[in-house]
Amino acid sequence: MDDINKWKFITPGIPDIYFTQDDNPNMTKEEVRCLTLCKVRLKIDSVIYDIGAGIGTIAIEAALLAKEGLVFAVEKNPQAATVILKNIEKFGVNNLLLIRGEAPEALVDLPLADRIIIGGSGGRLKEVLSAAQAKLKTQGRIIVNAITVETLATAVKQFAAMGLDEVSTCCLNITRVKQAGRAEIFKGMNPVFLVVGERT
Amino acid sequence: MDDINKWKFITPGIPDIYFTQDDNPNMTKEEVRCLTLCKVRLKIDSVIYDIGAGIGTIAIEAALLAKEGLVFAVEKNPQAATVILKNIEKFGVNNLLLIRGEAPEALVDLPLADRIIIGGSGGRLKEVLSAAQAKLKTQGRIIVNAITVETLATAVKQFAAMGLDEVSTCCLNITRVKQAGRAEIFKGMNPVFLVVGERT
Amino acid sequence: MDDINKWKFITPGIPDIYFTQDDNPNMTKEEVRCLTLCKVRLKIDSVIYDIGAGIGTIAIEAALLAKEGLVFAVEKNPQAATVILKNIEKFGVNNLLLIRGEAPEALVDLPLADRIIIGGSGGRLKEVLSAAQAKLKTQGRIIVNAITVETLATAVKQFAAMGLDEVSTCCLNITRVKQAGRAEIFKGMNPVFLVVGERT
Amino acid sequence: MDDINKWKFITPGIPDIYFTQDDNPNMTKEEVRCLTLCKVRLKIDSVIYDIGAGIGTIAIEAALLAKEGLVFAVEKNPQAATVILKNIEKFGVNNLLLIRGEAPEALVDLPLADRIIIGGSGGRLKEVLSAAQAKLKTQGRIIVNAITVETLATAVKQFAAMGLDEVSTCCLNITRVKQAGRAEIFKGMNPVFLVVGERT
Repeated sequence: MDDINKWKFITPGIPDIYFTQDDNPNMTKEEVRCLTLCKVRLKIDSVIYDIGAGIGTIAIEAALLAKEGLVFAVEKNPQAATVILKNIEKFGVNNLLLIRGEAPEALVDLPLADRIIIGGSGGRLKEVLSAAQAKLKTQGRIIVNAITVETLATAVKQFAAMGLDEVSTCCLNITRVKQAGRAEIFKGMNPVFLVVGERT
Repeated sequence: MDDINKWKFITPGIPDIYFTQDDNPNMTKEEVRCLTLCKVRLKIDSVIYDIGAGIGTIAIEAALLAKEGLVFAVEKNPQAATVILKNIEKFGVNNLLLIRGEAPEALVDLPLADRIIIGGSGGRLKEVLSAAQAKLKTQGRIIVNAITVETLATAVKQFAAMGLDEVSTCCLNITRVKQAGRAEIFKGMNPVFLVVGERT
Repeated sequence: MDDINKWKFITPGIPDIYFTQDDNPNMTKEEVRCLTLCKVRLKIDSVIYDIGAGIGTIAIEAALLAKEGLVFAVEKNPQAATVILKNIEKFGVNNLLLIRGEAPEALVDLPLADRIIIGGSGGRLKEVLSAAQAKLKTQGRIIVNAITVETLATAVKQFAAMGLDEVSTCCLNITRVKQAGRAEIFKGMNPVFLVVGERT
Repeated sequence: MDDINKWKFITPGIPDIYFTQDDNPNMTKEEVRCLTLCKVRLKIDSVIYDIGAGIGTIAIEAALLAKEGLVFAVEKNPQAATVILKNIEKFGVNNLLLIRGEAPEALVDLPLADRIIIGGSGGRLKEVLSAAQAKLKTQGRIIVNAITVETLATAVKQFAAMGLDEVSTCCLNITRVKQAGRAEIFKGMNPVFLVVGERT
């Protein structure tokens, strides 16, 4: 990355390779990051939680876009948390705060949120969603990125129970096409379900 | 749509139902629109062509995001063009110009472009890409949305021949999950390949 | 279909258009039918239940392949059941029995099964799986075709609870490529999850 | 594999792990193997070519199913060819012949074929298809498994030019669901396009 300022566009879409990843596997892929940020519908001044932030790729893009807002990246894994700090520095982001800890406990002292993105919940999605709902402002939006059957099923069920509005679910199945010699080979990515809803 | 101002977010993502579609089939779907706009990487002041604009959904979102830019929506089908005008009015967009005609001819008098989005090329993709390249500024980006084998193959081949940089191709395969009684049913959308590159 | 004998191959794969469908929507697609029959692993003399048989396409192919076996097609919808009879006649199948009724009740008097295919369970999957397990022979196999989040989640959970062996789940996402003028257009089908397991 | 006889079913569907793979990457996946064999429609006595056979998984299943037929597995890579021999021995197949060499040259002396499966063509698909057509009996079927844009585009174009009947193309996009602790994770496989046609 010659020039990180290159990435100060007005749309999401920083390629995966521009983030520091170190040894952390399974980073969120560019296309998933884009659609997550689109479906959660950022405003310029949104207060955003990124729960289970991993190495922070969604949080970084959110912070770059919501310039007058504030992003809280909640991550319990110390190794991943360290990489979030590296990415904060790399992209020169000053409105992103790392919260080392686990939801729902780690959310207690945070200000109310406009947008809550749940990328990981450590098997406690139901609890995390309860806490998230309590913290969500009116017209605020929650999105869950589900990579397992259990998370998908729980999210769909809880979103209905929570009485959220405009609930929608989609599965994003991306194939990348990679150059290999003279040919362009199809490479399947892991599908991700996005479950999103709005508090009325 | 009670309040169209609701859609003045800083990320793409206007739901399909908010656009006027009339009798035009096959509108670009929300998720495809989002990823197209992310991968073409808008700037606030981009000059954008949307070639084969259909009913204008991508052009509308581009115009809302690139507030200080200018969008040219090129569409040869008179019925679709009429709907573009309706959507321009509906969303109160003042930086989007309808060009009734067909690329490459319709591009001749347009100012140079920062971003060129090709959603349809009437079977003349090779010619359209040549003309597009001639109109594209340095560091400008082109994206082709391919829904046929032929368009995909031509785009991949021509992008290589044109010496574009950062060429990448992916296929976006979206499943929507629709409520039907007590169940959430998987509904497959038509896949779209996105081929994107940058002029060095 | 000039000659129905044409379809007496040794592999599944009768194209959809060869079946009588009448007004019944949502028939199982060729590719799903093929993989379902492959994953349930037919023997020449298998006793097979097809629960929620719809218009009978899977049952017909199963009966053609398991020539020395017997297929019970269980269907509660009278209109669909009528079409099963038409397809039995059309394909000249003599080892396929229509059971008008609903599982689990309709299974009571059936002989034990080698293979149980569950295409529909009327929202009672847990009960149906219990009854199916009670009817399944040792080394018998069960497959559930899930087209909803709820069925997928219940099947995955119950298969684990039932102590089945060789449990595997996959999602089949088919795109058909259709000729349209000079172009070949990508058409997405609805994805189906196949959950399969074997009784030890 | 305790008992290889277990796999003498009447449908395709031997799980990947039952084949010897050694160091060869990218074996054809179970689901692709199944659908390829279904779409090419085996008869009990088919003469079958498997061109670019890799480690022979499709050829082995074809030979087990077409018991009275004969399968020619053409493979130029010596390492892969060696593994084909291992799999022939492992599955006790006696109607499968390894042809070390490259199509189209390697096809010259083979008897006419009922079914031709093209899994790899070393970048010479057009030539291979010409030779294959010359060797194909009336009512014979050809299938190409395409994992690159170029192969897909060439296959679609040539099948049309060759005047084949019942040409159909689909893309098989499989997600496997893998157990990981208490969760079932979605894992995307690489998509494969299947292009199939019949000689009138």
